[in-house]
Amino acid sequence: MHPFTPATLADALAPLHAELRILGPQALTGRHPGEHEDNLGAGVVAQPASTEAAAALIAWCRQNHVAIVPHGGLSGLVGGGISRAGEVVLSSARLDRILAIRPDEGTVEVEAGVTLEALQAALLPHGFTTGIDLGSRGSATIGGMLSTNAGGILAFRNGVMRHQILGLEVVLPSGEVFSDMTRVVKVSAGPDLKQLFIGGEGAFGFVTKIVMKLERLRAHRATALLGVADAASALSVAAALGERGDLQMEAAEMMWPRYIRDHAALKGFDLDWLEDGAAMLLVEISSETEEKARLALEEALAELWDRADLKGGILAQSSEQARRFWDLREDSGFYFASYPNAPSFDVSIPPGEADAYVAGLIEGLGGIGNGFEAYVYGHVADGNLHIALAAPGPLPKETKRAVERTVYAGVTARGGSFSAEHGVGLEKRDAYEAHAPALKQALSRQIKALLDPDGLFNPGKVPF
Amino acid sequence: MHPFTPATLADALAPLHAELRILGPQALTGRHPGEHEDNLGAGVVAQPASTEAAAALIAWCRQNHVAIVPHGGLSGLVGGGISRAGEVVLSSARLDRILAIRPDEGTVEVEAGVTLEALQAALLPHGFTTGIDLGSRGSATIGGMLSTNAGGILAFRNGVMRHQILGLEVVLPSGEVFSDMTRVVKVSAGPDLKQLFIGGEGAFGFVTKIVMKLERLRAHRATALLGVADAASALSVAAALGERGDLQMEAAEMMWPRYIRDHAALKGFDLDWLEDGAAMLLVEISSETEEKARLALEEALAELWDRADLKGGILAQSSEQARRFWDLREDSGFYFASYPNAPSFDVSIPPGEADAYVAGLIEGLGGIGNGFEAYVYGHVADGNLHIALAAPGPLPKETKRAVERTVYAGVTARGGSFSAEHGVGLEKRDAYEAHAPALKQALSRQIKALLDPDGLFNPGKVPF
Repeated sequence: MHPFTPATLADALAPLHAELRILGPQALTGRHPGEHEDNLGAGVVAQPASTEAAAALIAWCRQNHVAIVPHGGLSGLVGGGISRAGEVVLSSARLDRILAIRPDEGTVEVEAGVTLEALQAALLPHGFTTGIDLGSRGSATIGGMLSTNAGGILAFRNGVMRHQILGLEVVLPSGEVFSDMTRVVKVSAGPDLKQLFIGGEGAFGFVTKIVMKLERLRAHRATALLGVADAASALSVAAALGERGDLQMEAAEMMWPRYIRDHAALKGFDLDWLEDGAAMLLVEISSETEEKARLALEEALAELWDRADLKGGILAQSSEQARRFWDLREDSGFYFASYPNAPSFDVSIPPGEADAYVAGLIEGLGGIGNGFEAYVYGHVADGNLHIALAAPGPLPKETKRAVERTVYAGVTARGGSFSAEHGVGLEKRDAYEAHAPALKQALSRQIKALLDPDGLFNPGKVPF
Repeated sequence: MHPFTPATLADALAPLHAELRILGPQALTGRHPGEHEDNLGAGVVAQPASTEAAAALIAWCRQNHVAIVPHGGLSGLVGGGISRAGEVVLSSARLDRILAIRPDEGTVEVEAGVTLEALQAALLPHGFTTGIDLGSRGSATIGGMLSTNAGGILAFRNGVMRHQILGLEVVLPSGEVFSDMTRVVKVSAGPDLKQLFIGGEGAFGFVTKIVMKLERLRAHRATALLGVADAASALSVAAALGERGDLQMEAAEMMWPRYIRDHAALKGFDLDWLEDGAAMLLVEISSETEEKARLALEEALAELWDRADLKGGILAQSSEQARRFWDLREDSGFYFASYPNAPSFDVSIPPGEADAYVAGLIEGLGGIGNGFEAYVYGHVADGNLHIALAAPGPLPKETKRAVERTVYAGVTARGGSFSAEHGVGLEKRDAYEAHAPALKQALSRQIKALLDPDGLFNPGKVPF
């Protein structure tokens, strides 16, 4: 048994470093735990304001064999931030400084706890933005996005966090600081160990600083909602937009019929323009001016109307209307009100196979027990589909297994992924064990043992 | 002492697998060794035609404690392919099949020995190309480019190999096959171990198959040579082109004055249009048609003329002329004729710091011994500079050290890299030991020991 209670642990940590703030059980009472109710289960949160303070905490935890659960913005969806009594949460909340914006080289240097939205706001006057954008931009931190290799809306064009991160600094479980604050894209200077921490879900260390590539901001946008028969039709729209020289595609987000019907009803969103039974595609493009953007999108859609067999369409007439289009897609948690803890999934498949996959999914889920329906939506241009059952969770064990078998059927064989952008955490451990190659699992455990021989960093997740 | 001579080793390997071709000392007589004269020093080359044949060879080598030097297209510039008697070269020459081109999902699946040029040619009819392009496209293989994390001309826009590779298959030193043939960009499914092999320079295994992202081919080009005062001016041109909606920048390659002067003289290339002492920028852009491309570039340059303080400029009037522009940049080895074994370097620095860096470089080199001049050229938009002394090599040891101190001065502190796209190999070992963080070196050795406990893969390189 561990000798510390949350209260005695908080007392022991408090004097460690002047730049370390400790929140004990009392200070945490009533605090919102973020996306998972057990995130603050440890009852102790350490908030370093510097790398040195984080290193001091980590060295102490190692000596005293106390496990550490790294926290970013608590927007994780797979329980990667769940903590228990006897552990300490190591939060990036006070590592929230933007250290350097360098428009001439197109890079930004930040501490790990800066939120995506704060960074986007700071870059705006410079005419730049991050190459990654997510619905949870208001709470998601750059460090958390690094740790889950987040993807989001722009991945079809810019790739994921791994492709946008140039450098990082991380405190290892040993307490040593691994610093690789590279600011250039071209590096062929021996093994690139920082890749281990990207998508590492806090199992290999605590990230403190990050260098990211920037993208030029293309603020002049036009946005449309289109009715489409299927993903193939949506992809033909995306491909046609991608071929045009007079615009840049900024988003291609698809929502399948059940998702649209229920969400539009909840929001009072008029669907008269949409053919019955059609799926919906949100497209956003940019051009040199708002006027050019609107004209280019209108022209492109007129050309596409018959060719892509569109089932209706509306163009946003104002940025407020565009925001309402986006809310249909980004307020995606609406179904949790009707179906608390609805089992949800996040898979990637090659985009061209989305229709076959979704058809199999819907048929398969319908055949389980009394039949399940699902909400399906996602980033169609990169093949990342989000799926939630229209049923409350948690499911009985056998039913859960049958659902997972259906959701993951063929995903790996198709060259896809059982987790696209949410990570493994605690909730996708079974999927990791079932679908990650055995050799990869074994090697990952060996590398984990090398970096964290006592298994103190985010224990039980990934699974390590 | 090892019991095998090249001849007895070749005899021992020959019967291992039906899909394994062995070339012994006789068969290799007179064969061109590629970019380094010692690449074929082993006197034995194994050419598997399948993953299984490679695995059989590797398992045998492990049992018999024979070291393996992986070979791609032999275009490496840092001696990463050098081999010695008693070792066996493991070549990807017969792993040269393009396995699947999937335009609908924008991916291609190849064996490791496919050359970049062969892949580009195969993709052409589909309207796609790779996101990476290099001068050595005719010999460089996709596997070799993966192993050095190659960058090239398009890295400012598309990133480097690490950003274009979705999946790979590699035979580990244990003889086991690590397969992660992912075909999607979004993966957050546990540690991404395939990143170890990207830029791994053959020290962790032998790559057999690769999945790459594709980019839409933009074939309608316009090309110009511009006189520029410095890198800052070149970058202002690149930035202005990058901001335009009517064209896409395809290249921004810079050549400093000494490089231009000597190379143009050698090629008989007319420089009357260029102000004395100016550097040269090659820009290439694409648009919807050739005509639009030419007009857009003309218009852009007219606008830029005063603002970027251009020192002259010529627009290619035909694709043949554009090719001659490119030859100035891509036939960069011309100086080896005058200066055999001229010491050469390949650094990355944040682009905005290129002028300060080059000024320091030229001054520093001039102060060594009787003074050195240098050829400087490279991919200015991503800060990757190639440098060669206008002096034959190899240099005496102390002089070599003084040159390296000068070339690498401030590179790491600026967030750059002592090796941008060529790797470490044998020739940049000293630089690796001097500039890679000690903690990174130590962890890399531990991971090497984990994957290759007997140190049989590309021994002595990186340095392991």
